[in-house]
Amino acid sequence: MKNNIPKNVIKRLPRYYRFLGMLLESGIERISSNDLSKRMGLTASQIRQDLNHFGGFGQQGYGYNVEQLRENIGEIIGIGNSFKVILVGAGNLGRAVAQHLNFEKRGFKLVAIFDSDEKLAGMKINETEVRHFSTIADFCKDNMPTAAILCIPTVAGKTVTEELYNCGIKAFWNFSHYNITDDFPNAVVENVHLSDSLMRLCFNITNREETP
Amino acid sequence: MKNNIPKNVIKRLPRYYRFLGMLLESGIERISSNDLSKRMGLTASQIRQDLNHFGGFGQQGYGYNVEQLRENIGEIIGIGNSFKVILVGAGNLGRAVAQHLNFEKRGFKLVAIFDSDEKLAGMKINETEVRHFSTIADFCKDNMPTAAILCIPTVAGKTVTEELYNCGIKAFWNFSHYNITDDFPNAVVENVHLSDSLMRLCFNITNREETP
Repeated sequence: MKNNIPKNVIKRLPRYYRFLGMLLESGIERISSNDLSKRMGLTASQIRQDLNHFGGFGQQGYGYNVEQLRENIGEIIGIGNSFKVILVGAGNLGRAVAQHLNFEKRGFKLVAIFDSDEKLAGMKINETEVRHFSTIADFCKDNMPTAAILCIPTVAGKTVTEELYNCGIKAFWNFSHYNITDDFPNAVVENVHLSDSLMRLCFNITNREETP
Repeated sequence: MKNNIPKNVIKRLPRYYRFLGMLLESGIERISSNDLSKRMGLTASQIRQDLNHFGGFGQQGYGYNVEQLRENIGEIIGIGNSFKVILVGAGNLGRAVAQHLNFEKRGFKLVAIFDSDEKLAGMKINETEVRHFSTIADFCKDNMPTAAILCIPTVAGKTVTEELYNCGIKAFWNFSHYNITDDFPNAVVENVHLSDSLMRLCFNITNREETP
């Protein structure tokens, strides 16, 4: 089933998961597709269509059980897998990512941070130790992480990814502008291009309808 | 013209801009839609279609002039506008955003950083001063920033946005999970939901085709 889910629906899954979590926090136990659509800015029929891809958990006249639906979506995402992830690049961005994200709630466990700067080795960010990049092969042999977060300069992208790939890491959360799939077409890659997002804001300001 | 550009094309504009910048840096002066398509992972016909929305700058048998095309796209995005932007929330994420992004190259000028922690007031991040949030109204009256970057906790979202809106700021680069358009339907909003992106990676790892 999962192989046939349209890409756009997959893209929205985390958003559903997030909204349902917020509903749950405000004590809402069930919700109609109409109500959910208003909150999420989607149409009710789109929501029903989306959720149908996962077997459709709504009941006529009752709506969706929020907790159940969230749990089901969490399972489809694989939140419970706790994939081991390492972070490479303990600069400002790397530190912010390590400290800001709640990895456990998003399907991951941050097991180590690597940097090429020797001065950072031994430091702790939250509870996670920073290690020198030269020790990465040994670490991976012992701990077999599934994924890596790349908070490195674009120019270092290829060398670092190659090393990680050789260590068995095939999935990447990529904050650099290095195009991983150019060289590693089978890698699982999720890119975060913050500067693209900033330019979209710029476009939308430039082209907004001016209200008089 | 610009009002009729499909949303998906707009979403790709920054990517075109970024790729063309990289081509320029490697000394490539012109490129065919075929070559560009290979680099960007789009089809050549999609590229031609996309760029047609902006009048189509390619020449038969010659391809696109990289510098010209990049300049044109930059103009459409509004890179040259240098919109004044302030950042609210000088925690880890706010600091990383302030330090990591090259605002000038993305259409903005970071003019001030605000935080509610008095201990941070006076500090400088890169060249930009951190000010206490209580001084924001005066600052906005004098400097009239166009946009705000929200690196604040979700619970503070509504109060902070309301204050900023009253100060004349109607455009937001939002890193929190507060849903700005619920309360301010006319705001220009670009959301960065890092945890959604992390969950998409989780989904893709969970559901990848296992190679034997």
